[in-house]
Amino acid sequence: MSGLGATNRNVQHLKKLLSRRSERHAEGRFVIEGPVLAAEAVRAGWTCLAQFVPEGSGIEVDGAGPVRALAPGVLERIASTQSPQAPLTLAEMRFHDSAQVLAMATFVVVLDRVNDPGNLGTILRSAEAAGADAVVLTPGSVDAFNPKVLRASAGAVFHVPVLVAPLDEVVAAGFELAGTSSHEAPGRTVVAHTSADLTGRLAIVMGNEAAGLPDRWDDDDGPVDVWLTIRHHGRSESLNVAMAATVLVFEAARQRAQMDRPGTEPS
Amino acid sequence: MSGLGATNRNVQHLKKLLSRRSERHAEGRFVIEGPVLAAEAVRAGWTCLAQFVPEGSGIEVDGAGPVRALAPGVLERIASTQSPQAPLTLAEMRFHDSAQVLAMATFVVVLDRVNDPGNLGTILRSAEAAGADAVVLTPGSVDAFNPKVLRASAGAVFHVPVLVAPLDEVVAAGFELAGTSSHEAPGRTVVAHTSADLTGRLAIVMGNEAAGLPDRWDDDDGPVDVWLTIRHHGRSESLNVAMAATVLVFEAARQRAQMDRPGTEPS
Repeated sequence: MSGLGATNRNVQHLKKLLSRRSERHAEGRFVIEGPVLAAEAVRAGWTCLAQFVPEGSGIEVDGAGPVRALAPGVLERIASTQSPQAPLTLAEMRFHDSAQVLAMATFVVVLDRVNDPGNLGTILRSAEAAGADAVVLTPGSVDAFNPKVLRASAGAVFHVPVLVAPLDEVVAAGFELAGTSSHEAPGRTVVAHTSADLTGRLAIVMGNEAAGLPDRWDDDDGPVDVWLTIRHHGRSESLNVAMAATVLVFEAARQRAQMDRPGTEPS
Repeated sequence: MSGLGATNRNVQHLKKLLSRRSERHAEGRFVIEGPVLAAEAVRAGWTCLAQFVPEGSGIEVDGAGPVRALAPGVLERIASTQSPQAPLTLAEMRFHDSAQVLAMATFVVVLDRVNDPGNLGTILRSAEAAGADAVVLTPGSVDAFNPKVLRASAGAVFHVPVLVAPLDEVVAAGFELAGTSSHEAPGRTVVAHTSADLTGRLAIVMGNEAAGLPDRWDDDDGPVDVWLTIRHHGRSESLNVAMAATVLVFEAARQRAQMDRPGTEPS
């Protein structure tokens, strides 16, 4: 039996799922590249349907579904990286009832149209590590199942629930909204992130890399309860959105841990 | 007058400086790609010797030296990115007397053989923003003048002094050494980064992405004064070295700001 060629229907299907968001979401399936991420998906209980590997490679990830052989050179032609790693694992998306997840959550990170796959992946890692209950992406954000996001998340995407929901749904769920804004607004009170109380039922809201939050949000009459700023030395634009999110979620985690174990940490 | 061709001696020189660390350091010069980074170098007072732009492009960065024209297609052939940005600016390295800088410093970040240009660039941004006095790279670290590092640093490399020095020189300078270790050592006391006192004359030491710190350092009899751990939820390997460094330097900045202005921040 020889491996599947580049024109095989299943192979073309994988290629489309890797390159097109619309295909992924129309079908509710996506492709995981490489053994480490596939193993992470299996460990986190995601459903993997099949794994595609170069014929004779002997590669197989336990639990990632039946092995299908690819003809020589096919992996390189369809994968999203220049040095692709087998297997390509076909997996099913998980759907969350966002209202239900938000109702149970006490600490979420909201990303409003964050655009860069590397930024989203990094923020997913930080959010998982800081103990966020969910990451909410507004419509227009980069797709969490984009191969670059999966890679940059180092598997965090399989561990922290990712919801797609409009900002209004987060407001309706009753969170205290901590906004971040890269530009000054006259008359607005901004609070150093280390001085703000981040111990409540908290949503940290980060805006798009270039545009920030939408006008009706980035407004003193808007739903944001507190505007956070990361006081820093040096130039004004020194942290990108992923670094800023990392700093904020770990400050929230610090304050929340202190609240849980009063007296066990220094002030 | 027509632009310089790909075989021109000056053009070949730029290409070597972009691709070879040894050339850069033999000569004490390097190349800055794009207008934003060049403007940042000028603003920070670095010496720029010449700027090379496609002929007729009209691109010129104030203060970045005399403009030299490149023939069509030459920029693309020598730049380090697929979509190169003019100008290519020839600049002089700045040398620091590491003993002198370390003697004056109260807060430094030490990177032991950190390998990835993106990680170094990100850590330079964090170190600058958190108010570190210098970043120390041990021999064997990625070169701070690597084009990918310059880009990832978003110009921070022009603002925070970067020293190349062995770990022993940091020890000799009398810092309190806060080490980070990704692997457990039996009997070692590790302290949550939020519980450790980071207000002293502090060197935060981060090891190589894969190998961590060298054995003689990663030892209870070694020079490290306190081992830090970032307590986190989820899986064990959830933060990479750049994210971990960002969290640590901002916790240090938080504690140090509190010390400077007692009573102005909540505990």
